[in-house]
Amino acid sequence: MRYIDEQTVEKIALGAAVLGTGGGGDPYIGKLMAIEAIRKYGPVKLISLDELEDDQLVVTVSGMGAPTVAIEKIPSEHEMTAPLEMLERVLGRKVDVVMPIEVGGINSLFPIIAAAKKGLPMLDADAMGRAFPEAQMVTFYLDGFDPSPVTMADEKGNTVVLYPQDGVWTERLARALTIEMGGSSSVCEYSLFGKDVKTSVIPDTLSLVERIGEYLLDNQVKEQIGINKMLKELNGYFLFEGKISDIERRLSGGFTRGSAKLEGSRNDQGKTFSIYFQNEHLVAKEGEHLLCSTPDLIAVLDAETGFPITTERMKYGTRVVVVAFPCHDKWRTPKGIETAGPRYFGYDFDYQPVEVLQKERR
Amino acid sequence: MRYIDEQTVEKIALGAAVLGTGGGGDPYIGKLMAIEAIRKYGPVKLISLDELEDDQLVVTVSGMGAPTVAIEKIPSEHEMTAPLEMLERVLGRKVDVVMPIEVGGINSLFPIIAAAKKGLPMLDADAMGRAFPEAQMVTFYLDGFDPSPVTMADEKGNTVVLYPQDGVWTERLARALTIEMGGSSSVCEYSLFGKDVKTSVIPDTLSLVERIGEYLLDNQVKEQIGINKMLKELNGYFLFEGKISDIERRLSGGFTRGSAKLEGSRNDQGKTFSIYFQNEHLVAKEGEHLLCSTPDLIAVLDAETGFPITTERMKYGTRVVVVAFPCHDKWRTPKGIETAGPRYFGYDFDYQPVEVLQKERR
Repeated sequence: MRYIDEQTVEKIALGAAVLGTGGGGDPYIGKLMAIEAIRKYGPVKLISLDELEDDQLVVTVSGMGAPTVAIEKIPSEHEMTAPLEMLERVLGRKVDVVMPIEVGGINSLFPIIAAAKKGLPMLDADAMGRAFPEAQMVTFYLDGFDPSPVTMADEKGNTVVLYPQDGVWTERLARALTIEMGGSSSVCEYSLFGKDVKTSVIPDTLSLVERIGEYLLDNQVKEQIGINKMLKELNGYFLFEGKISDIERRLSGGFTRGSAKLEGSRNDQGKTFSIYFQNEHLVAKEGEHLLCSTPDLIAVLDAETGFPITTERMKYGTRVVVVAFPCHDKWRTPKGIETAGPRYFGYDFDYQPVEVLQKERR
Repeated sequence: MRYIDEQTVEKIALGAAVLGTGGGGDPYIGKLMAIEAIRKYGPVKLISLDELEDDQLVVTVSGMGAPTVAIEKIPSEHEMTAPLEMLERVLGRKVDVVMPIEVGGINSLFPIIAAAKKGLPMLDADAMGRAFPEAQMVTFYLDGFDPSPVTMADEKGNTVVLYPQDGVWTERLARALTIEMGGSSSVCEYSLFGKDVKTSVIPDTLSLVERIGEYLLDNQVKEQIGINKMLKELNGYFLFEGKISDIERRLSGGFTRGSAKLEGSRNDQGKTFSIYFQNEHLVAKEGEHLLCSTPDLIAVLDAETGFPITTERMKYGTRVVVVAFPCHDKWRTPKGIETAGPRYFGYDFDYQPVEVLQKERR
């Protein structure tokens, strides 16, 4: 068993912004909130899958909404724990362990806040191995688990319990409520026993983002040692280097949607690139040529610091390095690709693994 | 104690379409469903406020959504009782009595179906004394009662429990869910004990709509005896007689909104009239001159049969008689007018009682 303290949070926030592929909520706000919670309530126990008992009740804690809204509307500590307390009332028992639904962005940090406040341990695992924009894009859904009861809260004090037919209905109903609640909410879903959790989650992902954060904190920009360490650990690729020449973002259907155009620099001089996102980066292209697509991961890093830049914080003129990583194998199954592949998001091409696309490119 | 049987349902449906002021859901569909439920489960006990015990738990049962959708999407029997069963689970006790939230339209009949299926008595009262389009437009809201827990269901099997901050948040959250659920849902709210219910509801309104239905069934068109009896009972007025010359209806924000233009006939020959609605009729005018506005009641009757015509069923060319009635005094308080008066619906004029407007007209 290990503990998450202030230094750990610092690293997790940085690493989570990489696996968040530009989304998962703004990790910088989440970091401040998590550090505050740890100062107030003490460090949080982080337990591995091996340490999880079969009969322990585990539940995911997350924020829902467009990152555009989350930046302006910082959730209260109450909002973070209200769904957990409601869930305990509905189930008539205490929750034993909390876990992140996604290891990307602010949603790696929200469960830390809830865990600190409630004195609960947190599981070193998540249900995406990255961030995705929609509620059904979780391994629990791929594996056929029931998300009910889904509990929600907002900062106005409204709370809700949903019993949706499946993860797709969770997405539809919770998203409609989140929009009505002003664009952001906090959610608990998939309250499952340890024995089931073990069969479905992606293990050790908080340790992974902590390690990635450590590499990036150590990063020597010129030599890009930290980035190289990260790429090695994640079997990743440099996609390109360039300057953001155009950025278009809009709030639509409760999501931040948009695209960025980039002009290549250094080795990529003279080339043009584009990135398309829905909360998270979904597609990266060189001209009309596909470089990487969902469910594989795309991350935009500041070329100066190596630090990840969320879709919200991408600005005209910023020099960036764009990297890509293979997703977890669970997303490469037919159901995984159907659930979170490019066609689900309306793109008219089939998924190809980033390794294959990179091999073709060389 | 009395019983609601097939004949009673026939009359209630007709009377409820009058007090529904064009909305409250389509009573003709509700009638068929209620008759089917009574055939299957037997007549429903109708109890007066005097017969209600202080410690009996009463809950409202209703349908939410745009009438446009309800006509196309007939709710299942399961959809009618799912919110009631969910409420009983949440409260950990049985409900003793059901009641209509509004006495207008299909929502007079939905609780009959739930009561028949569950073997529960129904209270001869409602919380509007008419139909209104939004959830907070109830006497319980005017009197400061908490609507929570609000339970909802749809025909797909999704169920929801809401704990909104107040009736306005019930409206916002339940409406957003209803739209996402395909435009209609079933709802239980305001689970209150008999002693509280007695202080807030409008009594004897089911008996009232039953009586109105009886008058209209007996109506001798030429002499308009039934209509006259109804006007006398409700202290109502003939507003005008005419032909629908234009009708505009749209689905917007989960409501059916629109207006009708009418050309006067007989005594009103040469005059033009208009009616504006949001599910229910809100405003009636002669030219630019106000004849009646919400919270007072406006009903459109077929000039041939005297039967009420819902906003959904108003058609070009239909000859109609338009009548108006004073609302219950609860709606004429400052809070009543603020909640359901013309300015709430975006009209730029103050509420004036229909009696005053009629006196000015003469």
